[in-house]
Amino acid sequence: MEGNGSDFSDKDTAMREPLLVRKRLNSTSQIAIVGASVCPIESLDYEIVENELFKQDWRSRKRVQIFQYIVLKWTLALLIGLGTGLVGFFNNLAVENIAGFKLLLASNLMLKDKYGLAFVTFAGCNMVLAIAAAVLCAYIAPSAAGSGIPEVKAYLNGIDAHSILAPSTLFVKIFGSILGVSAGFVVGKEGPMVHTGACIASLLGQGGSRKYHLTWKWLRYFKNDRDRRDLITCGAAAGVAAAFRAPVGGVLFALEEVTSWWRSALLWRTFFTTAVVAVVLRALIEFCRSGKCGLFGQGGLIMFDVNSSQATYDTPDLLTVIFLGIVGGIFGSLYNFLVDKVLRTYSIFNEQGPKFRVLLVIVISLLTSCCAYGIPWLAQCKPCPIELKNECPTVGRSGNYKNFQCQPGHYNDLASLFLNTNDDAIRNLFSNGTQNEFQLSTLVIFFAAVYCLGIITYGIAVPSGLFIPVILAGASYGRIVGTVAGSLTSLDVGLFSLLGAASFLGGTMRMTVSLCIILLELTNDLLMLPLMMLVLLISKTVADCFNKGVYDQIVRMKGFPYMEAHAEPYMRHLVAKDVVSGPLITFSSIEKVGNILHALKTTGHHGFPVIDEPPFTDAPELCGLVLKSHLLVLLKGKKFSKTRMLVGSEILKTFEANDFAKAGSGKGVKLEDLDITAEEMEMYVDLHPITNTSPYTVVETMSLAKAAVLFRELGLRHLCVVPKTHARPPIVGILTRHDFMPGHIRGLYPHFNSSK
Amino acid sequence: MEGNGSDFSDKDTAMREPLLVRKRLNSTSQIAIVGASVCPIESLDYEIVENELFKQDWRSRKRVQIFQYIVLKWTLALLIGLGTGLVGFFNNLAVENIAGFKLLLASNLMLKDKYGLAFVTFAGCNMVLAIAAAVLCAYIAPSAAGSGIPEVKAYLNGIDAHSILAPSTLFVKIFGSILGVSAGFVVGKEGPMVHTGACIASLLGQGGSRKYHLTWKWLRYFKNDRDRRDLITCGAAAGVAAAFRAPVGGVLFALEEVTSWWRSALLWRTFFTTAVVAVVLRALIEFCRSGKCGLFGQGGLIMFDVNSSQATYDTPDLLTVIFLGIVGGIFGSLYNFLVDKVLRTYSIFNEQGPKFRVLLVIVISLLTSCCAYGIPWLAQCKPCPIELKNECPTVGRSGNYKNFQCQPGHYNDLASLFLNTNDDAIRNLFSNGTQNEFQLSTLVIFFAAVYCLGIITYGIAVPSGLFIPVILAGASYGRIVGTVAGSLTSLDVGLFSLLGAASFLGGTMRMTVSLCIILLELTNDLLMLPLMMLVLLISKTVADCFNKGVYDQIVRMKGFPYMEAHAEPYMRHLVAKDVVSGPLITFSSIEKVGNILHALKTTGHHGFPVIDEPPFTDAPELCGLVLKSHLLVLLKGKKFSKTRMLVGSEILKTFEANDFAKAGSGKGVKLEDLDITAEEMEMYVDLHPITNTSPYTVVETMSLAKAAVLFRELGLRHLCVVPKTHARPPIVGILTRHDFMPGHIRGLYPHFNSSK
Repeated sequence: MEGNGSDFSDKDTAMREPLLVRKRLNSTSQIAIVGASVCPIESLDYEIVENELFKQDWRSRKRVQIFQYIVLKWTLALLIGLGTGLVGFFNNLAVENIAGFKLLLASNLMLKDKYGLAFVTFAGCNMVLAIAAAVLCAYIAPSAAGSGIPEVKAYLNGIDAHSILAPSTLFVKIFGSILGVSAGFVVGKEGPMVHTGACIASLLGQGGSRKYHLTWKWLRYFKNDRDRRDLITCGAAAGVAAAFRAPVGGVLFALEEVTSWWRSALLWRTFFTTAVVAVVLRALIEFCRSGKCGLFGQGGLIMFDVNSSQATYDTPDLLTVIFLGIVGGIFGSLYNFLVDKVLRTYSIFNEQGPKFRVLLVIVISLLTSCCAYGIPWLAQCKPCPIELKNECPTVGRSGNYKNFQCQPGHYNDLASLFLNTNDDAIRNLFSNGTQNEFQLSTLVIFFAAVYCLGIITYGIAVPSGLFIPVILAGASYGRIVGTVAGSLTSLDVGLFSLLGAASFLGGTMRMTVSLCIILLELTNDLLMLPLMMLVLLISKTVADCFNKGVYDQIVRMKGFPYMEAHAEPYMRHLVAKDVVSGPLITFSSIEKVGNILHALKTTGHHGFPVIDEPPFTDAPELCGLVLKSHLLVLLKGKKFSKTRMLVGSEILKTFEANDFAKAGSGKGVKLEDLDITAEEMEMYVDLHPITNTSPYTVVETMSLAKAAVLFRELGLRHLCVVPKTHARPPIVGILTRHDFMPGHIRGLYPHFNSSK
Repeated sequence: MEGNGSDFSDKDTAMREPLLVRKRLNSTSQIAIVGASVCPIESLDYEIVENELFKQDWRSRKRVQIFQYIVLKWTLALLIGLGTGLVGFFNNLAVENIAGFKLLLASNLMLKDKYGLAFVTFAGCNMVLAIAAAVLCAYIAPSAAGSGIPEVKAYLNGIDAHSILAPSTLFVKIFGSILGVSAGFVVGKEGPMVHTGACIASLLGQGGSRKYHLTWKWLRYFKNDRDRRDLITCGAAAGVAAAFRAPVGGVLFALEEVTSWWRSALLWRTFFTTAVVAVVLRALIEFCRSGKCGLFGQGGLIMFDVNSSQATYDTPDLLTVIFLGIVGGIFGSLYNFLVDKVLRTYSIFNEQGPKFRVLLVIVISLLTSCCAYGIPWLAQCKPCPIELKNECPTVGRSGNYKNFQCQPGHYNDLASLFLNTNDDAIRNLFSNGTQNEFQLSTLVIFFAAVYCLGIITYGIAVPSGLFIPVILAGASYGRIVGTVAGSLTSLDVGLFSLLGAASFLGGTMRMTVSLCIILLELTNDLLMLPLMMLVLLISKTVADCFNKGVYDQIVRMKGFPYMEAHAEPYMRHLVAKDVVSGPLITFSSIEKVGNILHALKTTGHHGFPVIDEPPFTDAPELCGLVLKSHLLVLLKGKKFSKTRMLVGSEILKTFEANDFAKAGSGKGVKLEDLDITAEEMEMYVDLHPITNTSPYTVVETMSLAKAAVLFRELGLRHLCVVPKTHARPPIVGILTRHDFMPGHIRGLYPHFNSSK
């Protein structure tokens, strides 16, 4: 099963049910899209394995070790903040310089009336950059394609898709994102920054990368899923903070959208991390202010100083804003719907191989270049406003007034939007006191183009964030509404543009508080808060009537077994044993090595119940649960005995808890590493020291809904189901993440499809 | 036990252990302070009781009912927002007018050089207001004293202290807070607003108050602890939003400090509620702008438009700020320490009866009046600055330049701080571009006075928030640091004042993100974010070295059995059965009425295990758990049978799930309401329909730490402990909140005190 692209390679349960798995997969309509098709999935385990080794370690834990742990925890948070801040800055620096150089080149050629050559240069640069990004992405780390937020979200829900946080992914994510954004695609660098932050956190938490000979040995306290989860949460928050220069927004984004578990203590640590990011960015931007960073000037790290003095509004204003919110919600959910369709279409193409992926990128790049260079010809030249303080037409790279094909003293407003970096285009749209800068036709054309380009660009093999396309489309939409409303309202069109962006974001991503804070931090104007809240609430409510948020949609499409916070209603009609199936494989507490090896070889299970049997107890009883990874380490140690006897204390002396710590993904002891002789196969091994004696259990008659809540809230990987009556074996089965998936349950009980 | 003041009247477990309870109480050093001494405590139950009645109801649930529920949910959120917004505004309006009138009266007399009369008027007004507040508080609703945030925090952790959310408490909280703040005490209205918001939410959720003949019948979906918890969370957030005009801060405050459970869906609903509050406040303030609200002008609803243009800072600035944070943290934790000591001292006094409480209030009021009127005489008059735009000395009520005893053209800077409402004093301290307005000596005197007054005022029998005293002290402290640092730093003293307030808040309340956002929303300047974050992180870290946050401290002092999010380390050495103690009272699934009645009469337990016994099953097995409140309703219905037989279906026809919905506190069927004849005592009742067949269970050998996590995360009231081996009765005991309290465990295992 391993490596089989379109399947879960992981099977946590101790039951054989391949047919069922296949059935479930079909029913959840998992499809292969870039980055997902090659991902085997493994569940994470947030339960503390309380076996004898752990208890021994716990008892001997000294104050100094606890202190070390705390210091390390905060040092790691600091390092994550530093790393993400630096990468975020580097990313912006590179994009501003590459894209700026490209745009300057083209506009210089246009100034000399060499329009054909200018297009070739522009499209050629785009193409080269796009191909570089696509090659990196398709050949080195396919998991780096797309936004990355759905993957991080899935990880924090307990789903470890292979290589999603690997060093190679980090590398491709950083450089792929720089190349992709520079190539002029309608993609953002925000989603990739979140993924980058998570990768940095994961790398630091694993103590570097063994593959690249960068390891720290003293990180043993963090070699478990719980601490890693916390670090990656910090990393995701740091990513948002670095992308938007919004430290508080980053914390809230992590809290509202990305994480599935949250603790108050984590709030503080995350806040510290994002504060570090803010400080790093501030220091570096201060450094660049003196012009040492090439074309990195006002641009880069988006920060739109809107600061509208207009802070009062009347009923007509409110009605317009409500209208804006409703229509924005509809457009947002339509966006999600179309992204879904496009992704499914692309997946067929992407599955053919890396070459096809690169080809797709080339096609989209050409299309984008044609749009960006071709559409501005449609616009009429406008004379520069007389009362203007800024220069017009713009000479430098960024600015509101692009000359394009116009005679001196005139500007092409479509070119000001198209032939610019996305950040600058947004800044132009948000700018206030500029009622007449853009014609209505310009805005409509730009909106239509950006809306469509955004949809068809997501899903190609480059790291591509969704924030910027949505903000771009939303900002132009808002400006359209503001222009049309005209005299009806006293609000500035720049403010409408901002509210339009908010409505689109609310309609696609369905966040509220975090978007609100991010937008406030971006625009630096708290007085807009009530209007922003209103728009976000309305657009989210409207969009929720149609479909799910875009990240949830992608998580579902990638086939991640995501555990929702609430149980489905029909789960109340079922009990735990209804979804448990298959013959169960259990081990005796002192088991023959051969049996264990056979079980490990023939199943893909990651947890096995251990039964205490006579003569050690009066009747068979559940001793606990043993993990595959621990079994492998134990077998490798070869502490076997010829007869069935308790040798636990010897094992406790040989091993320490650290030997069983979770290795980085793909690094632990593998079945192939074992070298067991035929003689050893007949020997016995005492499983007591590594058996988790406190697994969470439910009685078989427990309502499935309540079992699901238990499973989700405590972040389990295995949930033991015990019998109600006593005349039976001491364990009925094991529930894993897959058993709670709606697809699985509906496969077993098809009548819930209709009766829901 | 009911009504016994200084004891838990509630005993959830089905075990008799009075001696143990007493022992535990002593060890947690619970003491009686105002508002707590008369509170019997009951745990809340967030588990869904899945009995047959529930399942019947669930099956028959129609789409329209789900729709109704959603509409109601949002309507309630809207109403909570409206109610809290209106109360918040009314509160401010009243305070501004009463306090303003009082201050005007005194200053007019002073202008006529009648200093003695002015003092008598001033102190007299204060005294009358204070006595009114104290009488309300001491005689009508003692639970309304203090901040209220610890009680709300405890409620949301699952501890329902009697009358904490009652209508009488709401009434006293609103008017007591108005009177108390108007009386010139160094108390805030912010904590009380949080409590008020929670009370409003509770009242709305219970469908009004039956006692006052205000009920809505159609709120049946909300008659359970889960939905009430959500409403009260919204209410608490709305309270903060109304107190500070900080909608996002309100949401974060609820999330970070108040709640113990959080769902993403709740974030959205809370956000909606606070948005409503913001809109209500904005509309009402807009209405008042035309001068229709008496003395309510700029003042009231604190909103300090600091807007410092200074946004750059250097290393010396940073070092000063770090120093400020460290010392602020120390002062903050000292504040907590002293508040704790003062509360314990006052409690001895307060316990003597309501008269003594009023007396204490009178003493403190006199002291406050003397300070406010007497200390300004120490200050030298300062000539008004020449370049000033504002009038000097101030003629109206608020303003930076109080004339006091000075000749015309001069002002008394101490009087500007003391003879003002707290809000105005803070505004004066925060004001920027006013380096020389306050002399260093003035600031030091004011700081010392306010720091001490704040400490001795909390704990008297008036509703008293902690935010304002802490902000006042912090702001003057910050200004001192700013003035002393002088030329060392280029930052404005107003900004230092703000940072000082942040450092004190961080040092006492130990919040980070929410304080940051509240302060940002208060001051409307996002550029200060990095400095604010730095100060908060430092002061919290420093203060955490010494003691706990002030709210946690009060929660603990009031003896609430608060469940911490994490398990204590020594719990890993214990298993569930170690803290369970017997004997256990269980019911047979078809039980004799007399037995049930006897158990209810002789124990204070709220949950009883139900055992299925032969002949209905082969061997005794655990059927589930039945709640006392449900038993009482069932017994009242008198569906008894002469013989031991299953009559569940008949009961299902007679009752519906709604009959067993949780009534408002103190309103359900009571033991005294039952009227069971001697003949009926011998009859049987079928408990199946009301038995929760899916109680959460742990095996007796489950680690106590993991059981505690399960208990806390799922918000349980009863956790069944089942035996490991089968030759025993099917249930070992029940764990409740009290069994997890460190005091209880250390009482049983004293050696953990030392070995921790």
